[in-house]
Amino acid sequence: MIIDCHGHYTTAPASHAKFRERQLAWYADPALSSPTPPVISDDEIRETIEANQLELQRKRGSDLTLFSPRASAMGHHLGNQEISLAWTRACNDLIARVVDLYPDNFAGVCQLPQSPGAPLAASIAELERCVRELGFVGCNLNPDPSGGHWTAPPLTDRHWYPLYEKMAELNVPAMIHVSASCNPSFHATGAHYINADTTAFMQFVEGDLFRAFPTLRFVIPHGGGAVPYHWGRYRGLADMLKRPPPAEHVMRNVFFDTCVYHQPGIDLLVRVIDLDNILFGSEMIGAVRGIDPETGHYFDDTRRYIDALPLTDADKARIFERNARRVYPRLDARLKARGL
Amino acid sequence: MIIDCHGHYTTAPASHAKFRERQLAWYADPALSSPTPPVISDDEIRETIEANQLELQRKRGSDLTLFSPRASAMGHHLGNQEISLAWTRACNDLIARVVDLYPDNFAGVCQLPQSPGAPLAASIAELERCVRELGFVGCNLNPDPSGGHWTAPPLTDRHWYPLYEKMAELNVPAMIHVSASCNPSFHATGAHYINADTTAFMQFVEGDLFRAFPTLRFVIPHGGGAVPYHWGRYRGLADMLKRPPPAEHVMRNVFFDTCVYHQPGIDLLVRVIDLDNILFGSEMIGAVRGIDPETGHYFDDTRRYIDALPLTDADKARIFERNARRVYPRLDARLKARGL
Repeated sequence: MIIDCHGHYTTAPASHAKFRERQLAWYADPALSSPTPPVISDDEIRETIEANQLELQRKRGSDLTLFSPRASAMGHHLGNQEISLAWTRACNDLIARVVDLYPDNFAGVCQLPQSPGAPLAASIAELERCVRELGFVGCNLNPDPSGGHWTAPPLTDRHWYPLYEKMAELNVPAMIHVSASCNPSFHATGAHYINADTTAFMQFVEGDLFRAFPTLRFVIPHGGGAVPYHWGRYRGLADMLKRPPPAEHVMRNVFFDTCVYHQPGIDLLVRVIDLDNILFGSEMIGAVRGIDPETGHYFDDTRRYIDALPLTDADKARIFERNARRVYPRLDARLKARGL
Repeated sequence: MIIDCHGHYTTAPASHAKFRERQLAWYADPALSSPTPPVISDDEIRETIEANQLELQRKRGSDLTLFSPRASAMGHHLGNQEISLAWTRACNDLIARVVDLYPDNFAGVCQLPQSPGAPLAASIAELERCVRELGFVGCNLNPDPSGGHWTAPPLTDRHWYPLYEKMAELNVPAMIHVSASCNPSFHATGAHYINADTTAFMQFVEGDLFRAFPTLRFVIPHGGGAVPYHWGRYRGLADMLKRPPPAEHVMRNVFFDTCVYHQPGIDLLVRVIDLDNILFGSEMIGAVRGIDPETGHYFDDTRRYIDALPLTDADKARIFERNARRVYPRLDARLKARGL
């Protein structure tokens, strides 16, 4: 089977986005009435999923998507802890409904109610709710809740440890994923996303996080940012920093997805990164939605790039399925319970 | 001949760094006496160059290096405009002395006295001094003088236009190069440098700078950051942003160097980026100084990676020499004046 580890509900019903607007308006002007999440029917959800993600799964031949709220809309930098929590719960509840309607096609990955400077207690509680009550299998962790000002401590800082303890206890991984950028220097999907991936990896190279948390697992999306292209640089920097090679020091706990939108990039990824560290992903429907004039196919139809690799079927199965089941053991358990 | 477009004077005499220390101490405590740049003898300069950059040019077989002050020590975020200017002039004057001692081996590229929030007048004046009086052929432009807080406007903003006008008038390119990071999120050479490269490129994709300045030229170092690895993403994002393809919209004015420290990265670079846009560079002696245990050669001996490419000698000559002479016309004129 083909598991897509990176999909967002970018097509959620308009009333969901309206709720967010009203929520932020209320934050700006507390004299307004406090909004509540909209009533959304199953049919509305079906409509937004069937013509989009489900249609693309069928067309492109993937079976199951690890599905999380729209990343650019997490907007942790907006409002405060209370606002972030209410928005996050509404987003995660919607993901749970998608999964309940299409349990064969989706598994839930939650957004966390991060907020700049806030303690992680709310995120830990929401992670626990999503995993234990809603059956989610992972979370998205934003290394920069400030939205492009990078005011949070590095991911290796003890600040994050309580969340990591909960992740370890629940045995769920996190995808490192920033949200929108409110810094005009950084285009969200063209700079901020890729920079965050690169930044997180280098934090792991510098630090020693996985000695403290040997079972912790992170997926760095967008093919690991700049890392595979600069793999020699990272091996060399680790050496200069008197760190073990990244393959030992980082890559037992860190995985890259295949959201790299051309064949040469995917070819490089599998050439330098161990196949056990690569998870199929498309970020679909996401940052890049057009057709590549050079190939006539959608840029984000990443299955084609994997199919074209000179790998055995068994090796492709590692990328398409086996690695995801290893990194997301709660997904594996769900699939096994269904005889898959 | 082989022109290395990216070298820094990372081995400058210790008294130069001491001057910087005293300068920053004076800034912190104006009761101290204002320091003046140290007297450095020609022999001291020879000693720091011959055993290092010159030795490596000989060993690795490059002929001439575009030589600029140590990038991580530019430290535009430290002090103020006055401090930045005094430090910058001392740094550039030292580069001029290296070039005067070894005119066959080095050409000067200047640091600019940027300072967060300061107008660009001092940078424009220093660029003019370095080009007209010291014979420099280019400059390094820091898109983030704040050192990792990214408080400056994007490079496409009119804020930068007066500098671009001077660059166009003098017909010199800029290498986009940040300095040290004072943001604990960003390791300088492992995250901040690469992120800046990626960020600058995406700013050019979003903007329309080269319609206003059709002759302006930028070198994005470190192989263009994450860009070649994500070339499909950038082509797709340009399409979504209703921009022309990056090959037309950006790559008539933007060039990538070859500071990518492993063969697979260089292979990708030449596979996706037009050979006319690639300039040989090593960043030597720079960020990564060790030997790659996988090859037995220095990571930053980037000539080996180019030599290993299945390209004709004529194509390699574009990367090694011709593109640099086109992008740096003042270098070309200097070489022609020497019959080269």
